[in-house]
Amino acid sequence: MEIIIAQNSGLCYGVKRAIRIAKRTKLQKKGDVLTFGDLIHNPQVIANLEEQEIYSIEDLNEINHGTVIIRSHGVSPEIYKTLEKKEIEIVDATCPIVKKIQKLVENLTRREEEIIIVGNEEHPEIEGLIGFSKGKAIILESEEQAKDLPVKKKRAILAQSTQDLFLFKKIVAVLIEKTEQLKIFNTICESTQTRQKSTSKLASSVDTLFIVGGRNSSNTYKLYQISKRILPNTFLVENAEQIRPQMLKGAKKIGLSGGASTPPEAIQEAVEKIKKSCIHQFQRENIVQ
Amino acid sequence: MEIIIAQNSGLCYGVKRAIRIAKRTKLQKKGDVLTFGDLIHNPQVIANLEEQEIYSIEDLNEINHGTVIIRSHGVSPEIYKTLEKKEIEIVDATCPIVKKIQKLVENLTRREEEIIIVGNEEHPEIEGLIGFSKGKAIILESEEQAKDLPVKKKRAILAQSTQDLFLFKKIVAVLIEKTEQLKIFNTICESTQTRQKSTSKLASSVDTLFIVGGRNSSNTYKLYQISKRILPNTFLVENAEQIRPQMLKGAKKIGLSGGASTPPEAIQEAVEKIKKSCIHQFQRENIVQ
Repeated sequence: MEIIIAQNSGLCYGVKRAIRIAKRTKLQKKGDVLTFGDLIHNPQVIANLEEQEIYSIEDLNEINHGTVIIRSHGVSPEIYKTLEKKEIEIVDATCPIVKKIQKLVENLTRREEEIIIVGNEEHPEIEGLIGFSKGKAIILESEEQAKDLPVKKKRAILAQSTQDLFLFKKIVAVLIEKTEQLKIFNTICESTQTRQKSTSKLASSVDTLFIVGGRNSSNTYKLYQISKRILPNTFLVENAEQIRPQMLKGAKKIGLSGGASTPPEAIQEAVEKIKKSCIHQFQRENIVQ
Repeated sequence: MEIIIAQNSGLCYGVKRAIRIAKRTKLQKKGDVLTFGDLIHNPQVIANLEEQEIYSIEDLNEINHGTVIIRSHGVSPEIYKTLEKKEIEIVDATCPIVKKIQKLVENLTRREEEIIIVGNEEHPEIEGLIGFSKGKAIILESEEQAKDLPVKKKRAILAQSTQDLFLFKKIVAVLIEKTEQLKIFNTICESTQTRQKSTSKLASSVDTLFIVGGRNSSNTYKLYQISKRILPNTFLVENAEQIRPQMLKGAKKIGLSGGASTPPEAIQEAVEKIKKSCIHQFQRENIVQ
């Protein structure tokens, strides 16, 4: 039996940076340090932050003092204004790639172009981007929604930074037929594109694949969808405990991958759990990373 | 047995217009009326023009007098200049849609953008467009060629007016991964898109399909490729004579389609030939158009 971990799986630059900023802020500031919403979509990381007394607050009305960390997904301009009015200190941990997308949306809005964003309406990054478009951006999350759009002379299209490149291309293919001049900004970040590619490559070469990560992490769920398309024997687990022996039945070559918010320890724990579950099956232990 | 003719098959607006202009010019002018290259890629139409003493000349050096018709595919600015120097009267029958593409290429070249054109390097429309780009446009005719291009910040992509939309989309999908900002101009003309769609729809509902048209017509050949992908029993014939009884063996539902340069008579002759070949098979005659 062999266990192979996908290249580039696990915490991305933007997430690592946000965690580093939050921890450093806690050391530097005297008062409460809060994050506006979960800093990243991973229960283990959130638990770890809570141990260090960095708490997540979902409701803006409940934030009335202390320092607020803006998470890597970013927020809309309205949120900054509200916090400033309340004279709350802001530490901005928005991923620099997301910041660039926010500026792009702001510029396109100023030029009064129709903006299509491929993403999930409820994802915090999208909520922020809608704000930067003054509510004008059209959010699409499926090919079918794109088919419903009318014919138009000019359009601009971009994507949530952690979107599925496959879906983005499919939506572009629909819009090519409906738009005379379509400006495409491929804003899916390099690390997401590489992670999706290595996971999809891994799915073609193993017989069972585990995606480790928070169920509420959009990019983790997308990795699951990408792998499942290629390998029906793909499982999404939040942690090592969720790996059940029946999932491993008959498996000879097992793949592992994790989203941008999956800490390396979570993947390591999954490896240990698989090894333990399959101890009797192991002829040789072979972990490729 | 049933014979179905694809909607929108046969001569397009630009081609009909060019033939009309040529014939009118011959009536109005006293001297020789020549076309620079075949007016359209169809041997029957060319023979008909020759009967009316409108001759096609391939070599610019041989044009030294008379009136020259610029064909619907258009020509490069250099050709206009050479003819003007020779003081030859020009009657421009360039398709208005191609004219628009030429202007677009000229503008993009002025803005110093990298221009990708999906098309065949030797197609007269492409030769003209290369001229309008001052030789700078990159011509792609396959996904593989697109894969060889380097990563770039900005690119503009357009297509020869009669290109295969499927190929255009596939090349765009490759370039999305290699370009930060990709401007897509869907310059495939409406009539080509409709013709391709109705032919591909027809290919899914018949058991044998004939594409009628000149072998040297790029858009006719593309219809053949589109249909062949769906229905292996697709045949490309230049005229009714090329329809052989063995092609019709066992056929119950026969489809017919023709390119932008296929005259309606050619399709009608093909219908007659099929009816004649299959006379013993016909239970009821049913031609849907």
